[in-house]
Amino acid sequence: MVIENFESQKDKVSKWFLELRNSIVASFEKLEDIQNTGLRSEIPAGRFVVSKTKRNSELEVDSGGGLMSIMRDGRVFEKVGVNISTVYGPLEERTKKVMQGRKNSPKIGQPTEFWASGISVVAHMQNPHCPAVHMNTRMFWTPNSWWFGGGADLNPCIENSEDTSFFHAEMKKCCDRNDLEYYPKFKKWADDYFYIPHRKCSRGVGGIFYDDLNTDWEKDFAFTADVGSTFLPTFLDITEKRRQLKWTESQKNTQLLHRGLYTEYNLVYDRGTKFGLESGHDANAVLMSLPPVAKWY
Amino acid sequence: MVIENFESQKDKVSKWFLELRNSIVASFEKLEDIQNTGLRSEIPAGRFVVSKTKRNSELEVDSGGGLMSIMRDGRVFEKVGVNISTVYGPLEERTKKVMQGRKNSPKIGQPTEFWASGISVVAHMQNPHCPAVHMNTRMFWTPNSWWFGGGADLNPCIENSEDTSFFHAEMKKCCDRNDLEYYPKFKKWADDYFYIPHRKCSRGVGGIFYDDLNTDWEKDFAFTADVGSTFLPTFLDITEKRRQLKWTESQKNTQLLHRGLYTEYNLVYDRGTKFGLESGHDANAVLMSLPPVAKWY
Repeated sequence: MVIENFESQKDKVSKWFLELRNSIVASFEKLEDIQNTGLRSEIPAGRFVVSKTKRNSELEVDSGGGLMSIMRDGRVFEKVGVNISTVYGPLEERTKKVMQGRKNSPKIGQPTEFWASGISVVAHMQNPHCPAVHMNTRMFWTPNSWWFGGGADLNPCIENSEDTSFFHAEMKKCCDRNDLEYYPKFKKWADDYFYIPHRKCSRGVGGIFYDDLNTDWEKDFAFTADVGSTFLPTFLDITEKRRQLKWTESQKNTQLLHRGLYTEYNLVYDRGTKFGLESGHDANAVLMSLPPVAKWY
Repeated sequence: MVIENFESQKDKVSKWFLELRNSIVASFEKLEDIQNTGLRSEIPAGRFVVSKTKRNSELEVDSGGGLMSIMRDGRVFEKVGVNISTVYGPLEERTKKVMQGRKNSPKIGQPTEFWASGISVVAHMQNPHCPAVHMNTRMFWTPNSWWFGGGADLNPCIENSEDTSFFHAEMKKCCDRNDLEYYPKFKKWADDYFYIPHRKCSRGVGGIFYDDLNTDWEKDFAFTADVGSTFLPTFLDITEKRRQLKWTESQKNTQLLHRGLYTEYNLVYDRGTKFGLESGHDANAVLMSLPPVAKWY
């Protein structure tokens, strides 16, 4: 199958990721502003530092890039990254290898162009009562296919069943209003995907995960946009409930150990990380998901 | 080629690793004892916590195990692990996949027994003036081959050319007294092996690395033993020179960021880590190399 010119779809997708990025960045800075009493309110409200990223920055040819926004040492956020990127060019053989075994995966040894656009959010919180969170959605295009993928998952270090249930319920509502078959499938996919075999445990309490989504472009884009639109208020609600709870040093320590687990997951198993490192994207942008501080026992 | 019964060689190798482990553990505890004035001398001297590890601990069948010794929060060592293990059984298909492309690598889809014994030492130091260090040697056996592999590398966060030169010189002497061809080859191998492509830098200042060493068993074992015997006094000498130097908070921060790099290397590229996690060895033992605390900017 050869796909028609996809320029208008690509344009819509990357514009949406930019809009979503702008809402997230604005909401997160607002959250820093409203923490103006209580815990850590004596320090200045955190602000994002924004920088442009380039893929294969050592090459002359334009192969795309993105916008990396990182806020560090805030009142509420210890480190949060919001990245968007739109990258393109010839698909490298080493990248194709990573993609083998997937639906419509590009053929080894046969030159293929690709285009990919996505957003990635990872928040590591000051307060161990506030779960860390991850959301990432993307569209991938090659001349003979396109697909959407992504997901969102909650990573509490002190699990609170109220937050967990709320997060899952919101993700279910989001899936259900797009397709009733999605939630059971994408919830299970997250459970499988975010499992750490060597530790025999999951990195968090899961959420949803999907990939290779290629049914009807408008429908798949609408769902992907909905995942982003659902993620933001859900995460803000949970954070709002927990951000002023006092924590102990032992709880902070639990959080740092939990981040060690998160780091192991990201560096050993995460598809997005593997793809990013393999495809020569700015390592600081790919690895902005890594925690500010982590511990291993 | 089918190899004769290798029991006596296996026995010699695993006994040597135990002896070496005992010397290292004793020397490291002694180093804690002699830091009885100056920096951190007000806290108790660090001591190793020793535990047995089992491979595939959920299975009924004995597939080997080891001895994990970890010292934490000492006067000199922030976290140091000394592991030995002797593991055996049928080689799993997923493990064979990791080993493909190497000399005499076992065939996919064809049952193969294996036996492997090794020692691994990783020291993360309290004082950022003291380089972190790694040493690991091992013998691997399958019914149609055996080989030795290993290496040692220095990981300073504040590089000191005197320490770097001394470390390389001692490794060179060790290689040269075994085979004049080794040093140039194994030094370069370490430079290549400990390089982090996505960061475009090395994790430390290198040392030596070798694998698939299969010339004459007595000769290869003697060299492997010599690497261990050389590592210990070399590391102790460097530590002795640096352990009482005062450090600043900014230097400690540099150390924690450097450990982030070390973590990335170990989880993304390290062969031993991949083999350990793939072959179902105790994850705490495989990952004892991870730092007690690491930071990412």
